[in-house]
Amino acid sequence: MTGGHEQREPALMSTDLYDVVHRRRDVRGQFNGAPIPADVLDRVLGAAHAAPSVGLSQPWDFVLVRDPALRGAFHDHVRTERDTFAATLDADRAAAFARIKIDGVLESTLSVVVTYDPGRGGPAVLGRHAIADAGLYSVCLAIQNLWLAATAEGLGVGWVSFYREPFVRELLGVPAGIRPVAWLCLGPVTHLESVPDLERHGWRRRAPLADAVHHDRW
Amino acid sequence: MTGGHEQREPALMSTDLYDVVHRRRDVRGQFNGAPIPADVLDRVLGAAHAAPSVGLSQPWDFVLVRDPALRGAFHDHVRTERDTFAATLDADRAAAFARIKIDGVLESTLSVVVTYDPGRGGPAVLGRHAIADAGLYSVCLAIQNLWLAATAEGLGVGWVSFYREPFVRELLGVPAGIRPVAWLCLGPVTHLESVPDLERHGWRRRAPLADAVHHDRW
Repeated sequence: MTGGHEQREPALMSTDLYDVVHRRRDVRGQFNGAPIPADVLDRVLGAAHAAPSVGLSQPWDFVLVRDPALRGAFHDHVRTERDTFAATLDADRAAAFARIKIDGVLESTLSVVVTYDPGRGGPAVLGRHAIADAGLYSVCLAIQNLWLAATAEGLGVGWVSFYREPFVRELLGVPAGIRPVAWLCLGPVTHLESVPDLERHGWRRRAPLADAVHHDRW
Repeated sequence: MTGGHEQREPALMSTDLYDVVHRRRDVRGQFNGAPIPADVLDRVLGAAHAAPSVGLSQPWDFVLVRDPALRGAFHDHVRTERDTFAATLDADRAAAFARIKIDGVLESTLSVVVTYDPGRGGPAVLGRHAIADAGLYSVCLAIQNLWLAATAEGLGVGWVSFYREPFVRELLGVPAGIRPVAWLCLGPVTHLESVPDLERHGWRRRAPLADAVHHDRW
């Protein structure tokens, strides 16, 4: 890139929205375990907490998991679930899957577990009477804000999906009725890859935007 | 704000991530109906399409609804659902609710209906075997990217939640098995309010971040 961009900050620390959106990756293998300054963590969580929410219910919580014993137990659980998934694949897909690291639970600085409380803002949550999942959607909007802010700060985020909700609920003492939505690995990284891991390792390619756009009718 | 920020662009068009995250609002009453330039719409949809997705499945679609007849029919449906909700409230809450405009379907430039296709990327979606909703979460991450990009471009977004999914499915010819997740009003605005509508109108106040943060256990 040349021309009018000389005065930009270094790419890794740019806070330009579009830079961040397109540079953001789901990180598994690039965590370096370095500490996260308190003010950085505050800004990242503050961005999550500034997300829109149905009826202004802000139904999210953030559990910051640093305890190595808790993270080790979760990592063991993830390995088991990984094997369960691998067993469902044919040989080609299993070979592609074997190349992909699926979590950075132990290498990242900490984990952020995001939960959903359907009772918050009740009993009548404005906008949720017709769509039961609307509160869950709000939690996901907060997660994306967190992810982008982390990227802007030079941190990586890895969303671990290979777990069972009841396991996490018990591990972290999540009360009945409150749902774990995401286990996010968070921390400084050596770099962000320019191509998603699943594409680099031959699992799946990204589709063009045009495939997803319709006019007036689906 | 003084000091080192003189060279910043005007606040309305800033693309700084944190500016955008904290300036973003759920817009209902400030749409002015002006056109959206094609390159702006491309950037906004491109940001949505750059969101993370479970197994790189990109399970979202975007239906751009400009047809006044379709939008009029949806608006009528929303009014009915609004009345249904109002009837569940006690007198005080009903009075607060009556002050809140709940949609900008007719005043905004266009609507973007975002849908979820659970079949995309299948049959084995990496990361979805244990968490059935993970694909739905991906769609919400795309919505937040869209919302932030729109804000950076000086557009407003209003998420309309007062509708029944089957109504939207039929109205827009959404195929069986594909789920409407959000009806978003999109377009230029006169301004963005600094305080969310629901707080301005006495429906609910935002809670401090500290209430949502836990350490090691929920």
